[in-house]
Amino acid sequence: MERTCGNGTLRAADAGRKVTLIGWTAKRRNLGSLVFIDLRDRSGIVQVTCDENTAEQVKDVRNEYILQVTGTVQMRKDANPKMATGEIEVLAENVKIINRAETVPINISDSTDTNEDTRLKYRYLDLRRPVLQNNMILRHKVCMIARNVLDGEGFVEVETPILARSTPEGARDYLVPSRIYNGKFWALPQSPQIYKQLLMIAGMEKYFQIARCFRDEDLRADRQPEFTQIDIEMSFADEDTIFGVVENLMKEIFRGIRGYKLEDHFLRIPYEECMARFGTDKPDLRFGNEIEDITDLFADTEFQVFRAAADQGGEIGALKFSNTADKYSRKGLDKLQDFVKHGFKCKALAYLKMDKGVLSGSVAKPLSEEEKAAVIERLSMQDNDLVLLIADKKSIVRQALGALRVRIAHEQNLIPAGENYRFLWVTDFPMFEYSEEENRWVASHHPFTAPKEEDIDKLFSDPGNVSSRAYDLVLNGYELLSGSIRIHDQDLQEKVFEAIGLTMEQAKERFGFFLEAFRYGTPPHGGVGIGLERLIMVLAGTENIRDVVAFPTTNSSLDLMSDAPNFVDQQQLDVLGIEIADKDKQ
Amino acid sequence: MERTCGNGTLRAADAGRKVTLIGWTAKRRNLGSLVFIDLRDRSGIVQVTCDENTAEQVKDVRNEYILQVTGTVQMRKDANPKMATGEIEVLAENVKIINRAETVPINISDSTDTNEDTRLKYRYLDLRRPVLQNNMILRHKVCMIARNVLDGEGFVEVETPILARSTPEGARDYLVPSRIYNGKFWALPQSPQIYKQLLMIAGMEKYFQIARCFRDEDLRADRQPEFTQIDIEMSFADEDTIFGVVENLMKEIFRGIRGYKLEDHFLRIPYEECMARFGTDKPDLRFGNEIEDITDLFADTEFQVFRAAADQGGEIGALKFSNTADKYSRKGLDKLQDFVKHGFKCKALAYLKMDKGVLSGSVAKPLSEEEKAAVIERLSMQDNDLVLLIADKKSIVRQALGALRVRIAHEQNLIPAGENYRFLWVTDFPMFEYSEEENRWVASHHPFTAPKEEDIDKLFSDPGNVSSRAYDLVLNGYELLSGSIRIHDQDLQEKVFEAIGLTMEQAKERFGFFLEAFRYGTPPHGGVGIGLERLIMVLAGTENIRDVVAFPTTNSSLDLMSDAPNFVDQQQLDVLGIEIADKDKQ
Repeated sequence: MERTCGNGTLRAADAGRKVTLIGWTAKRRNLGSLVFIDLRDRSGIVQVTCDENTAEQVKDVRNEYILQVTGTVQMRKDANPKMATGEIEVLAENVKIINRAETVPINISDSTDTNEDTRLKYRYLDLRRPVLQNNMILRHKVCMIARNVLDGEGFVEVETPILARSTPEGARDYLVPSRIYNGKFWALPQSPQIYKQLLMIAGMEKYFQIARCFRDEDLRADRQPEFTQIDIEMSFADEDTIFGVVENLMKEIFRGIRGYKLEDHFLRIPYEECMARFGTDKPDLRFGNEIEDITDLFADTEFQVFRAAADQGGEIGALKFSNTADKYSRKGLDKLQDFVKHGFKCKALAYLKMDKGVLSGSVAKPLSEEEKAAVIERLSMQDNDLVLLIADKKSIVRQALGALRVRIAHEQNLIPAGENYRFLWVTDFPMFEYSEEENRWVASHHPFTAPKEEDIDKLFSDPGNVSSRAYDLVLNGYELLSGSIRIHDQDLQEKVFEAIGLTMEQAKERFGFFLEAFRYGTPPHGGVGIGLERLIMVLAGTENIRDVVAFPTTNSSLDLMSDAPNFVDQQQLDVLGIEIADKDKQ
Repeated sequence: MERTCGNGTLRAADAGRKVTLIGWTAKRRNLGSLVFIDLRDRSGIVQVTCDENTAEQVKDVRNEYILQVTGTVQMRKDANPKMATGEIEVLAENVKIINRAETVPINISDSTDTNEDTRLKYRYLDLRRPVLQNNMILRHKVCMIARNVLDGEGFVEVETPILARSTPEGARDYLVPSRIYNGKFWALPQSPQIYKQLLMIAGMEKYFQIARCFRDEDLRADRQPEFTQIDIEMSFADEDTIFGVVENLMKEIFRGIRGYKLEDHFLRIPYEECMARFGTDKPDLRFGNEIEDITDLFADTEFQVFRAAADQGGEIGALKFSNTADKYSRKGLDKLQDFVKHGFKCKALAYLKMDKGVLSGSVAKPLSEEEKAAVIERLSMQDNDLVLLIADKKSIVRQALGALRVRIAHEQNLIPAGENYRFLWVTDFPMFEYSEEENRWVASHHPFTAPKEEDIDKLFSDPGNVSSRAYDLVLNGYELLSGSIRIHDQDLQEKVFEAIGLTMEQAKERFGFFLEAFRYGTPPHGGVGIGLERLIMVLAGTENIRDVVAFPTTNSSLDLMSDAPNFVDQQQLDVLGIEIADKDKQ
């Protein structure tokens, strides 16, 4: 079917050119003798003008009819600056209807007002909206760049199985009943973690895969049951090498997609320092306002609230916002107080404001003049500065102030407008965290992460203080990837399993083949898994993961378009040897 | 971990160069004062020579130990022409053991003698064999070329869901029980067929995906439960356009991988003609020996066997092999007879040989002199030619002679040695085939394939004679891809469902959302799905699909490495609301 160019590519320079276009009717206006049709294809929209010669051919045309138009590009009398093709139009000489359309149930435009559930049901129509089509193209381009960059550096993409073994550690697996071995199950992989480590043992040296992963979790707004990971692993590499690969990859992606030049090397901050300064392991570095630990100023304070916190090993933390005191009335501060009390179980939020060199605020009275002077000096306070203070358990102080820091940055527009990508490596994550629920230490990252060499002797004696060689890459407050240097020694791997309370029997039952693999010449190795959807969301400037997935589910894991999951025939279950459980019996 | 180059890259030109290498110990020979180590990495193997200065460092080294070697490249006294690096060796100056290895349970070499099941159990070791590593790299390269070619032509790769809706038409689905909606199931897609058609309806115009597909079938040697497809679909395209895209893709792949120049356009033969000439829809065109229908020569024959076949609408088919009569004694011909009788339910295989212008053989006597002269003329028979004849039902004649054609070509080495890729488009496949099992017409390709325009009026009156716009691409006797122009009209799609015996209710139940999508402006479209594993098998020159899959299953769908599928905890089943069926109850 002949076409000479994309509709959205036509410009003033094309005036006079004879073209044949194909597209969907985005809009149709009938001005009596003239009919204007906005014709949309993947490349964009152009206005087609039908005069008395062709008006008859389009008299039955309605929205979403597919047309083939032959005509001549001409300058418009009144240019439309909102359209990329707005300077020109195509004067139709012949119009052929390729296919008809019934009235569509959603509003197909970037500014659609149709609710999301309806758009998900008619996803194939929603995807006609230019913004979604462009997101899909953006996603494709990012993957093309990633593959070409990694290929250029000697990485080999290897497809690992989707039908895999269930290894219940971490999130819940999706299971697939086996027809041949009734009663046994495959599991869909939460990541290719074990396979990629086996590929290192297999001597592949540099592996990557843009890999589908699956987690049967209760979804949050930014999660989908299946998601995609740019998965990378390499042998004989330390953090410097791996960070270099990722930094180069990000530079090429941001240059290729946004024409934006990233710095050569990204900032690195160890986890402990990051938590102390930002109260989170994914800080947004587009603004300052770091947390200050001012506990030491109150070692001998008479103010009981601060004294108690300091004495009980807690922390007194402060956040300063310059020239902001007048933006927060008592009412505004009460809202912040509610926010930290309810969100983070803080006992209280204190504040200080400075006016003409004098401090006022909720703790102005109980603090001594010396203490106030020390606060002013430590925080370099100036007139109209606002300082928020929390005295509590260290973890509560950090979390609450970290959240306040972000909230106020948004409320006060502290984030510079425009493109501004601030990457950060957070390193040295804790090896373990204590699970109150399971009453045991669990791996913070995953149990294949290497502990720091110098902390190995604390694996059993002081697991809470073992640092690992795990790292995250954070961008503007979002975690873009996680990774680590892995264990490559069987004895150490067994010790780590033991430290998280797996008996040797359980470890062998779950990971036996993997543990055995370590025996036969395992190279030192490490890698990362980059969340593709999150990366595309940042590049596309959207907060909705469904904007970057072609056929997403709802937050409750429903595919509204095909109505899946759905019931299946009894016969299908019979061959699998499974039954729907009797609810009453349970 | 420092390394200066890949072990397999070193050549005579590197002599004198100081290098640092890393690799696995492939072989170790101790000659007293000298120790020779074959050091293997992904790039290949190089010999490391340790003299008295370093012999001590490697005294404990065993096979598969990982070493880091610093040394100087020097010419060997006795070059080894079997190794790419055979002209040189590396005289070690320092050797560091990176990791140790226990005795490996398989023979890690291209000429391994370990049985396949053991190698599958230790797949991570088997993958150290250069031949398998190279296959994985080959596969990666093919995918890189495919993506870059298609991207260059404006195709956009879109990821479609793995958790999809079960649409029981075709092979058996793998099912995934839903935790949130107990009793409902996802299905793993047999192909992205419906999604890619929806993407056309969504206006993506040119889509591709290197897509994972799943079929829960009893496996054959060349099948795996999951496999990969280069999946392509485009709008506003006819066969010529789609064939052009595929031809260009194949040209770039064969040029990039094998340095082999394919012809610009591949031969096309309609299905009916293909069956008549080759007895199969996937003929190997590397040799001739086509089937000749010589029924017409025997319209008035006295020879009852031939007469009966002709009278009953059957066919008398002949295959001629030049200069081959002396290769098949009575015993050899008996074997061929057994082959067609048992494999294809042929009543008999007849033969004729020519010697000094005179025919002998099983039917030399019953045929008249005129008939024999006619055979000689039609088949241009010469001395020492062998002609095999079958008189039977047309389908039996074609299948049996088609199989004989291939068998004898292999027995007599009729296939030219060396690289020789003969592509063929087989077009105009039948729309339907009759399923004796289900007692109804079923779609030969799939029910979304467009019938030939001129055959639409036979959909119900004569379904067996409706040709479709389905096509295959065949290479050297293997089906590389299937595809078709699709139906883009809702009425026609409903008619086709009806023709295969689906009630409107059943069609709506299974494909309702898809049928509805046709209403809203569906472009004409078509596409292909290229079997990636088959393509890699051809390029790698292997008949074993497990040679081109990183982590394959056995023919009985077992992953011997991780022992999957496996039993899962009762708790995992409980949250899914399923039970293992009670065998006794069934």
